[in-house]
Amino acid sequence: MVGPEIERLIQLLSRLPGLGPRSARRAALRLVEKREALLIPLGQAMAEAAAKVRTCSTCGNFDTIDPCAVCADPRRDPALLCVVEDVAGLWAMERTGSFRGRYAVLGGLLSALDGIGPEDLGIESLVARAHAPAITEVILATPATVEGQTTAHYVAERLAGCGVTVSGLAHGVPVGGELDHLDDGTITAALRARRVF
Amino acid sequence: MVGPEIERLIQLLSRLPGLGPRSARRAALRLVEKREALLIPLGQAMAEAAAKVRTCSTCGNFDTIDPCAVCADPRRDPALLCVVEDVAGLWAMERTGSFRGRYAVLGGLLSALDGIGPEDLGIESLVARAHAPAITEVILATPATVEGQTTAHYVAERLAGCGVTVSGLAHGVPVGGELDHLDDGTITAALRARRVF
Repeated sequence: MVGPEIERLIQLLSRLPGLGPRSARRAALRLVEKREALLIPLGQAMAEAAAKVRTCSTCGNFDTIDPCAVCADPRRDPALLCVVEDVAGLWAMERTGSFRGRYAVLGGLLSALDGIGPEDLGIESLVARAHAPAITEVILATPATVEGQTTAHYVAERLAGCGVTVSGLAHGVPVGGELDHLDDGTITAALRARRVF
Repeated sequence: MVGPEIERLIQLLSRLPGLGPRSARRAALRLVEKREALLIPLGQAMAEAAAKVRTCSTCGNFDTIDPCAVCADPRRDPALLCVVEDVAGLWAMERTGSFRGRYAVLGGLLSALDGIGPEDLGIESLVARAHAPAITEVILATPATVEGQTTAHYVAERLAGCGVTVSGLAHGVPVGGELDHLDDGTITAALRARRVF
């Protein structure tokens, strides 16, 4: 029905998160409709990103320079290292603007089911970095899921004896969260970690 | 926080239908993560589509050939012309496989609010095509919205005297539709157009 060029565009677009087959078709149509304003610039932006963006060899972030802008920034606190599952987690931390240390991207989480062991994640290089004398605290910011917390515990064990404080993000009620919409585990965690006003 | 190349990718992706700022960021991350499998092929597919896909000068469809594959297909019924709002409508009709005529894409709908008049849509060329002796029926498949039906009525008036039958898609209960989820207008239309078993 549609030419092979458009079919291929739809097929590739449908592999993006958030786009199913239907919305990929709509996206392809919008692209072809907005040839000058969207299709050509987006194609060029992708070619440019493919040519320039690389993985930071220190922390695992994506950037056009290596070490990345975060690792290279001299205003960053050299004492703090934040461990995240992936670059999405790193970006989420950066958006808050509340962390001024550097990162270690694991590139996944431990998972017996998926056969992902410590050697598949950047844990050795993380342990090596944590041994640097400048580092005083490693903050484990893996997700609050079973796999995220298993990974955090494993990393914490591996860091024992490094002489660094190992901490984790607090569990509790999300800002703006209604109790009625929260699961029991979150409310229990928030109650246990309650603070005196 | 992220380099200008990735920022630009996110900004352009967020202009696709179905992707907001958050999902555009996730999509950009996925693209950079899957550089070989997704980012490079998608960039190439876009460049190829930009270079090859054009608007059919007869019906307004998108294709790499002009006239498009639908207009050029000799097995199509030359007596039937289906009027659709846009290429998305044409593709939706084609997916059904139940229409074997050709199309006229209006490229929009009449809208006093948006200042879209008959001269902005392909109505003159549609009327000219409808005068061809081969055409016996024009099917108005504009959406069942106020603007879609206003446009259909206008086109029907313009086609009066062409010597063609002018028809419109039936209104009724969508296949698989539950009465409780349907609006009153649809149920009323379905009741009025009820058929004897």
